[in-house]
Amino acid sequence: MRDIVMDGPALEAFCKEAFPQVHQDFAVEEVAPMRVRVRLKVAERHLRPGGTVSGPSMFALADVAVYFALLAMIGPKALAVTTNCSMDFMRKPAAHADLIAETRLLKLGRALAVGDVLIFSAGMEAPVARATMTYSIPPDRPAAAPAATP
Amino acid sequence: MRDIVMDGPALEAFCKEAFPQVHQDFAVEEVAPMRVRVRLKVAERHLRPGGTVSGPSMFALADVAVYFALLAMIGPKALAVTTNCSMDFMRKPAAHADLIAETRLLKLGRALAVGDVLIFSAGMEAPVARATMTYSIPPDRPAAAPAATP
Amino acid sequence: MRDIVMDGPALEAFCKEAFPQVHQDFAVEEVAPMRVRVRLKVAERHLRPGGTVSGPSMFALADVAVYFALLAMIGPKALAVTTNCSMDFMRKPAAHADLIAETRLLKLGRALAVGDVLIFSAGMEAPVARATMTYSIPPDRPAAAPAATP
Amino acid sequence: MRDIVMDGPALEAFCKEAFPQVHQDFAVEEVAPMRVRVRLKVAERHLRPGGTVSGPSMFALADVAVYFALLAMIGPKALAVTTNCSMDFMRKPAAHADLIAETRLLKLGRALAVGDVLIFSAGMEAPVARATMTYSIPPDRPAAAPAATP
Repeated sequence: MRDIVMDGPALEAFCKEAFPQVHQDFAVEEVAPMRVRVRLKVAERHLRPGGTVSGPSMFALADVAVYFALLAMIGPKALAVTTNCSMDFMRKPAAHADLIAETRLLKLGRALAVGDVLIFSAGMEAPVARATMTYSIPPDRPAAAPAATP
Repeated sequence: MRDIVMDGPALEAFCKEAFPQVHQDFAVEEVAPMRVRVRLKVAERHLRPGGTVSGPSMFALADVAVYFALLAMIGPKALAVTTNCSMDFMRKPAAHADLIAETRLLKLGRALAVGDVLIFSAGMEAPVARATMTYSIPPDRPAAAPAATP
Repeated sequence: MRDIVMDGPALEAFCKEAFPQVHQDFAVEEVAPMRVRVRLKVAERHLRPGGTVSGPSMFALADVAVYFALLAMIGPKALAVTTNCSMDFMRKPAAHADLIAETRLLKLGRALAVGDVLIFSAGMEAPVARATMTYSIPPDRPAAAPAATP
Repeated sequence: MRDIVMDGPALEAFCKEAFPQVHQDFAVEEVAPMRVRVRLKVAERHLRPGGTVSGPSMFALADVAVYFALLAMIGPKALAVTTNCSMDFMRKPAAHADLIAETRLLKLGRALAVGDVLIFSAGMEAPVARATMTYSIPPDRPAAAPAATP
C-alpha cells in the first residue's frame, strides 16, 4: 500500500490556491492511504427551498472528495480531470446539517483513478447519496496548472 | 405523443418561483413534446481557473434541463426528485461560451422518467458532456411544494 | 434494522425455479440484513480468449447479487426489475478463478432499492469491478411471476 | 470527420475470430463514421421466463455495439477494454423480437472513447434501454491480442 504524499492541511492549502471560489466550502477531516473524509460546510448558498441540500452541491462534494483522495496519493502536480460520474440520490439530506463524504479510491492506475463516495448528513446513519467518479490522470509534465473540473 | 402542458415562459416563471437562487442562470430556448433546449448563461461564478465551466455547473444544467422536459409534459404540480445521474465529461468547454443542453425524455412513466442530455459549448459541434437523469414522480397530491433537487 | 426473510438456501431454491437457465452459475455464500455474498462459479462459457471473465458475466453477477440482497429482505413475492446500472471495470479478473460479489443494499424503499457491489477474483484483494443497481419494486400483487431482468 | 477503416463484413469477421463463443449472436447492419447499427439475433439462450430478453444479453449487445463503432474507426489492432458502463432499462423488450442497437461514438480520443447506445425491439418505436460505454484504448503495440471485455 502506497503512503499518502499530501495530508489534510496540504490538500486544503492546494484547494485554496486552485479553487479560490469554493475552497471555503470544504474541510478535509481525515486522510489515510486511498481514503479521505471531506465535509461540506453547508451554507445558505447550498440549499433549496425546504432546507435540503442541492444536487449540484452534492455533486461538487463527491467530485472534490475523490480529487482529494487522488491528490493525497499522487501529489499536487497532477492535471487530473473528471471523465465520468454516476450518482444515486437516495434520501433527503437533513435540513442545515453538514454533509460528510466517506471516500475511498478503488483504483489508482497510471492513467485512470476510480473513487467511491458515500455521502451522509452529519450525525445520521443512512447515506443520502452515493457516487463514483473516474479521474483521468495525464502523463507527467514539467509544470501543471490546477485541474479543471472539481 | 402527448402534448406539452408548459411552454418556455411557463417553465421559466415556475423556475423563478421555485428556485430563486439559480433561476437567472438558465434560459429555456425551445420546448417540444419530450424535448427541451436549455441554455446555461455562463457567468464568472460558473468558471474555474483557466476559464472552463465547472463540473457542478454542468451537472446543474443537465439536472434542470431534464426537470424542465418533465414539467413540460406533466405540469408544475409534480414533486419530482432526481434519483440517479450518470455523466461523461468528454471535452473542455470553450472559455466564456454559454452551454446548451439538448434534452429529450426517453421514458415518461407513472413513477419514473428518464432523460438524456447532450451539452455543447454554444457554437461548437462536438459535445462537451453527456448526462442521463432519472426522476422519481410521486403520486399526485393536493398541493405540491417545489421539487427538491434541481 | 429489518431481519432477513429468505436465507441462502431459500434464495437458491427461488433462483432455480425462476431462472432455470442460469441458477447453477451462482452460489449464495452469506446472507445478512441488507448484505449478501454471491459467488459466480466461473466456467468455460463465462470466459473470453485469454481466460478473462466476460463483461456480461460480471454484469449478470452484480445484477443477481443485488436481486438476492433485495429478496432476502422482502421475500420471493416481488416482481422487481432492474431499472438502472452503473459499472466500473477496474482490473482484469484472474484466469479461471471464481468471482465473489460483496453486496449491500444502500436503500430499501417502498418503490426503489439501490444496491452496491464490489466484485473480486476469489483470493485477491483488489476489486476487479464495482456496480450499483437500482431495482423498481412494484406494489404488492396477489401472485407474482418471477422478476424479468436478472 | 474521419472515415471508417472497417466495414460490416470486416467487423463480423474480426468478431468471429476474436469471440468464437458469441459472434453468431450479432449482426452488423450498418456502419458509418462514428455510427453503427448492430442486431442481437435473439434466441432461447437470451430469454428469461415470460419471453423477455435478459439484462446480461442487453449489456452484451451495448458493449459489442460500441466496440464495433470504435473498431470501425481505429481498426482491428486495438486492445481496447470497457472501463465504464451506465445503463437504463426503460421498457420490457417485445417477446421473441430481435434487439437493435443504434450506436454512436460521442468521443474518440487517443486514450478514451465514449459511445452511446439506444436499444430497440425490432419494429418498435420506444427504446427499451439506453447505455453509455467508455473504452480505454491502450497505446499502439506491435501485435495485439483481441480485446478482453466485449
